[in-house]
Amino acid sequence: MSRTEPAGTPLGDAFHVYDTTLRDGAQSEGISYSVADKLAVARQLDALGVGFIEGGWPGALPKDTEFFARAAAGELELRHAALVAFGSTRKAGVAVQDDAQVRALLDSAAPVVTLVAKSDRRHIERALRTDVDENCAMVADTVAFLRAEGRRVFLDAEHFFDGYRFDPDTALRVLDAAVTAGADVAVLCDTNGGMLPLGIAEVVGDVAARTGFRLGIHCQDDTSSAVANSVTAVQAGATHVQCTANGYGERTGNADLFAVVGNLVTKLGKPVLPDGALGELTRTSHALAELANLAPNTHQAYVGTSAFAHKAGLHASAIKVDPELYNHMNPVDVGNGQRVLVTEMAGRASVELKGTELGLDLAGRPDAVSSVVATVKEREAHGWSFEAADASLELLMRGALGEGGQAPFAVESYRVIVEHRPDGGLVAEATVRILHEGERLIATAEGNGPVNALDAALRKALTPSCPWLEHVELADYKVRILNRGGDEGHGTDAVTRVLLQATDGAGSWTTIGVHGNIVEASWLALVDMLAYAATRRQPAPA
Amino acid sequence: MSRTEPAGTPLGDAFHVYDTTLRDGAQSEGISYSVADKLAVARQLDALGVGFIEGGWPGALPKDTEFFARAAAGELELRHAALVAFGSTRKAGVAVQDDAQVRALLDSAAPVVTLVAKSDRRHIERALRTDVDENCAMVADTVAFLRAEGRRVFLDAEHFFDGYRFDPDTALRVLDAAVTAGADVAVLCDTNGGMLPLGIAEVVGDVAARTGFRLGIHCQDDTSSAVANSVTAVQAGATHVQCTANGYGERTGNADLFAVVGNLVTKLGKPVLPDGALGELTRTSHALAELANLAPNTHQAYVGTSAFAHKAGLHASAIKVDPELYNHMNPVDVGNGQRVLVTEMAGRASVELKGTELGLDLAGRPDAVSSVVATVKEREAHGWSFEAADASLELLMRGALGEGGQAPFAVESYRVIVEHRPDGGLVAEATVRILHEGERLIATAEGNGPVNALDAALRKALTPSCPWLEHVELADYKVRILNRGGDEGHGTDAVTRVLLQATDGAGSWTTIGVHGNIVEASWLALVDMLAYAATRRQPAPA
Repeated sequence: MSRTEPAGTPLGDAFHVYDTTLRDGAQSEGISYSVADKLAVARQLDALGVGFIEGGWPGALPKDTEFFARAAAGELELRHAALVAFGSTRKAGVAVQDDAQVRALLDSAAPVVTLVAKSDRRHIERALRTDVDENCAMVADTVAFLRAEGRRVFLDAEHFFDGYRFDPDTALRVLDAAVTAGADVAVLCDTNGGMLPLGIAEVVGDVAARTGFRLGIHCQDDTSSAVANSVTAVQAGATHVQCTANGYGERTGNADLFAVVGNLVTKLGKPVLPDGALGELTRTSHALAELANLAPNTHQAYVGTSAFAHKAGLHASAIKVDPELYNHMNPVDVGNGQRVLVTEMAGRASVELKGTELGLDLAGRPDAVSSVVATVKEREAHGWSFEAADASLELLMRGALGEGGQAPFAVESYRVIVEHRPDGGLVAEATVRILHEGERLIATAEGNGPVNALDAALRKALTPSCPWLEHVELADYKVRILNRGGDEGHGTDAVTRVLLQATDGAGSWTTIGVHGNIVEASWLALVDMLAYAATRRQPAPA
Repeated sequence: MSRTEPAGTPLGDAFHVYDTTLRDGAQSEGISYSVADKLAVARQLDALGVGFIEGGWPGALPKDTEFFARAAAGELELRHAALVAFGSTRKAGVAVQDDAQVRALLDSAAPVVTLVAKSDRRHIERALRTDVDENCAMVADTVAFLRAEGRRVFLDAEHFFDGYRFDPDTALRVLDAAVTAGADVAVLCDTNGGMLPLGIAEVVGDVAARTGFRLGIHCQDDTSSAVANSVTAVQAGATHVQCTANGYGERTGNADLFAVVGNLVTKLGKPVLPDGALGELTRTSHALAELANLAPNTHQAYVGTSAFAHKAGLHASAIKVDPELYNHMNPVDVGNGQRVLVTEMAGRASVELKGTELGLDLAGRPDAVSSVVATVKEREAHGWSFEAADASLELLMRGALGEGGQAPFAVESYRVIVEHRPDGGLVAEATVRILHEGERLIATAEGNGPVNALDAALRKALTPSCPWLEHVELADYKVRILNRGGDEGHGTDAVTRVLLQATDGAGSWTTIGVHGNIVEASWLALVDMLAYAATRRQPAPA
């Protein structure tokens, strides 16, 4: 069995940053993770250094069961976090060892289990249709059973704040049943999200004083206070905070992991992430938005692209002299940057830095830097976004330096036909005409969609002379429709941004294409994908 | 001159809901109001019943000068709110009556003026390059001058919280200069937005106790706590709260008016809006998003379309019985509504509930419910997602009930060609062959992409017999590539999910299509879009 405590987080077990993006976040309207997405989300969260990753509800949702199985089979290696399975206590009137859902929690092989239990008497009586005694027995039995099987157990006390206001004795009895049976954190959940900070501080302080239990906090954002409530609970004594990436969650969402962590570290001086991880906040937030297939929230605290953007004419010149007077913290600390709007510049320094990161020396070539800056600015104004497409950016830089970066062929033409036939059959067929090393190559191939057909036709034309292409594989394909706003276009008139991720066994890279026509956008990204694959075959000139 | 106090707000002058959307909100990256927009925003805010509307900075921004001129000329009649001009104190070393910007405040004819002043000694010395004595004289002179001209004056103490921490005496001297000269609210501004609720409560309580002044609060959202901070300040004694619609503002934005008002009314029991106005919260929020040309935030507290949407299968049956146990308040009170999202986790209860929401009575038709549940589960296992596609779900339900839901035509075949020509030209062309009311229709059209061409060809075929189609417009198009994980497929072999949003002027609806081929997925969503448009034309059978 894997570890039950966070490894390599600076405060160790003394403070828990607990992420529930894969369960609560997945309840968000508009999010639908595949199992592969879930594994990728967990890897991002672990790399950031959270202490616990709640993977889902095995036994209740087939996708979650599969997620835990694949994690246990070696698809998920965690460096910092311990993996957590979420589930409910045994049902009323059922022996715990006979409860299939409790069994599924064991079968998940997750070393930590978070059990959800009712702590509001009205829910116990009206939703569970049982009484407080049986509810407490359900909690105690299930905790003891899982502890006896070697699991660490946390208790999510659902609807705690509403329940505590309605009948504090029942609410406390439920916590007591769990902790007495061996749960070591009692997590107070504001499930309906109706709390405000001063109420949170009062209840958390009160419960801590009355029980002495280790307390956690779980807040929903229905009063737009989830982050503030979570941080306030920590100030009042909670040492375990449950959050989701970008605040994803049911209804208005949960407490945003990045804002909570940003506040804990920079405002309360709690080093809850590993060294250097704070600087990954912005990148991680954007990567997780990408995995959720949602546009990043530009105005998000700490990590939004607008979070340190200044528009006010009043301040513009003063900001240049004294930036620390006009930002609540240094944006670089969270991997973000200050931007002054209107005079916005795709900075030469950042292009140089990026070049260094990619192994290209742009420092002595001001002409190349100028050309890259100009191209990036011009393309980004038309919907390109190079931050997620390093390979396309590297090709651009190589081109500016005269160090390659061209595709291994020239395009004469292509044609794609998609036909839905009278017999119901569906065909996608592509023909490409390209010039490669002085030869004119023509190939036609079918695919299960227009891009797949184009990819197949290109490979058919090129593989005889470039056999290494067989190892290059298209691993992911993402499409975002950009509504350009105003009168520029909408619906299917909008601009399409395609990101392709490719691998050749030794590594992976991402390219971008943007166009009003989705097929042409995909084509541009495909061409970059092959150009970059060719670059990888030959070492860059010294 | 117009009135200086809010008219017709329930707490009169005892509590101020003060909106600064037209000044601070206009600083938001992505917002650019015309003067006509500003007048329309002010009318919406007044109809909602806020007490004060800050219209902008006359004399500093030409648009704002024009806004006040047109308001004074009769283009803006306010029923509830008093209009406020924002501006700075006289400059250092200039006599107040000679200061052009102070003069512009008078010229605006706004009955109330909010003056911004530095209250952080570092800003006084480093940005203003003057000393505390002169800064206080600037405040006192300007307040006294405007009071002598019959204006009511509020003071925005900029960077107050940072300044108070650094040098409380200076910060308090600035407030004292203003109030002694006749300002009647000292607004404590967290200009850099770095505060958290407990700090706000402490400082507001402290300043109230030390000065006895009437205090206001103005929060920015840089710690994701602006709403919580504002409400906490009110609990600590502030009786004037500055907000912007939907939290629009520089960087991460300001405190969201709708969440603050929702919290004050429903959580603190403060009737700060006129009778009946709370029910206009959702509509007003969406109207102001429209005026800002921004998509509404679906997850926004109180007013978001997801704010009361429930997805968890766990809760769906319980929600049916006891909705008040699962919402922090009644969504109808703020003009919003509860929604149940039908997903693969769905049971019969959530399908029935959803039917009721859509006006279809499934309760007496267990066969139809079974069929819908089975279809939803089967399709969602293949990548469909009905939670975001109410119109496709309604068609499915109508089909199961035998109440229509079919497309107004049958498809024989279609063909789409995308060609990148040797001359660089790019063409997308679609041909559709369909059967409509016994007639075989064939049409070919071009578009700027394959879906646009298909949409155009379908319309070309159908519009002669269905002229109402001209009012149906494709408003948004979303594509999500689903990597099915495991060996099921990846890259361009994956499944594509398309969501189409359409409008016909009277309303909007969303349909879905899923297929391995992006063109076929789009086609399926297009067909549903037209089927739903046809359904909207005829009332459902009784």
